[in-house]
Amino acid sequence: MPRVSQDHLAARRRQILDGARVCFTRYGYEGATVRRLEEETGLSRGAIFHHFRDKDSLFLALAEDDARRMADVVAEQGLVQVMRDLLSNSREHPADWLGTRLEVSRRLRTDPEFRARWAERSEQLTTATRRRLLWQRDAGNLRDDVSIDVLTSYLELVLEGLVSHLAMGLPADDLEPVLDVVEESVRRHRGRSTGSPAGDAEDHNVDRYGEQDIPDTR
Amino acid sequence: MPRVSQDHLAARRRQILDGARVCFTRYGYEGATVRRLEEETGLSRGAIFHHFRDKDSLFLALAEDDARRMADVVAEQGLVQVMRDLLSNSREHPADWLGTRLEVSRRLRTDPEFRARWAERSEQLTTATRRRLLWQRDAGNLRDDVSIDVLTSYLELVLEGLVSHLAMGLPADDLEPVLDVVEESVRRHRGRSTGSPAGDAEDHNVDRYGEQDIPDTR
Repeated sequence: MPRVSQDHLAARRRQILDGARVCFTRYGYEGATVRRLEEETGLSRGAIFHHFRDKDSLFLALAEDDARRMADVVAEQGLVQVMRDLLSNSREHPADWLGTRLEVSRRLRTDPEFRARWAERSEQLTTATRRRLLWQRDAGNLRDDVSIDVLTSYLELVLEGLVSHLAMGLPADDLEPVLDVVEESVRRHRGRSTGSPAGDAEDHNVDRYGEQDIPDTR
Repeated sequence: MPRVSQDHLAARRRQILDGARVCFTRYGYEGATVRRLEEETGLSRGAIFHHFRDKDSLFLALAEDDARRMADVVAEQGLVQVMRDLLSNSREHPADWLGTRLEVSRRLRTDPEFRARWAERSEQLTTATRRRLLWQRDAGNLRDDVSIDVLTSYLELVLEGLVSHLAMGLPADDLEPVLDVVEESVRRHRGRSTGSPAGDAEDHNVDRYGEQDIPDTR
């Protein structure tokens, strides 16, 4: 296939996903009719369903797309940064990013088949988080008294809480310092090492030099 | 009013709430028809709506009842214990306690009027949590480098995540050690004090005597 055609296909796919995102956010999964999908994407149903088998496939591709972008941020900056992004996005565009996450939550609750299809896709966020934490542990930035699996589950649980909180429209102005607590609680902390004299000395250095010298573990 | 009659009223009210809880859990708010409420409570609609003005009032009374019981556990044992109870309850009765919380979440998302009515009721859980944390701080069990308000929001955010997690039917077997991390992160921790020599010495004692000597801050 010539290069230009591949680019064209990718751009068309992007156009459909962007329009569908707006549509699902605005109307929910059930309310996102084919007609509304046509309006929001600016494409005919024929063009849309040339790229995606059906509405369910389109929705899953969208959710997967979001999960991948979140995983990219995790790989670069950690899951706490994903949460900070959610916070600031929710201030600027209260409903923009929530659409797919909310629909995912709702359908996980009510649709066992969807739950199975979703499980493999959500796995990549978990994998990215675990990999990032392993890397941080190797760099000596992470607490070493709790397993990577537990820390991963901990961060994911807080993310779920944040999504639920924002989705319920509860005030989020006070959550930045809460995320600071979350971030700090996975860090290697003075006094939290194995208790060896060397560990203690190292911890005291961190203490003396102040917070700015603690490596960033986001 | 004679005492026996008051007891009778309270028991009848209890009977209605218990039946309604089963009904809302099983069918959701919309699906809990008056006929189903009659079946689950074993009472006529006349008897039910003698005690509660309408279905909405019944639902709010139920949600308020749950919030009060949670606040009681918080006052005695802290919000992390509420989360541990949710975990073990969800193992024994996967859907039992979730009913009202789920409906509350859904209606908070979709019903602004309900949001306003709910706000005052949910306030008591926040108040109980804040009061418990203040008490723990006075007892020297709580970290003192983060405000009570931030720690309260932190614990509530994790609670929301847990409720959402369980509601989505995600596996929860691995969450006990996660709650240990949460609990530990609000505690006064060796090395987390203001850094005065006295504070350091105290922290080292805690270190030396081991975890079992750290006061329980739940």
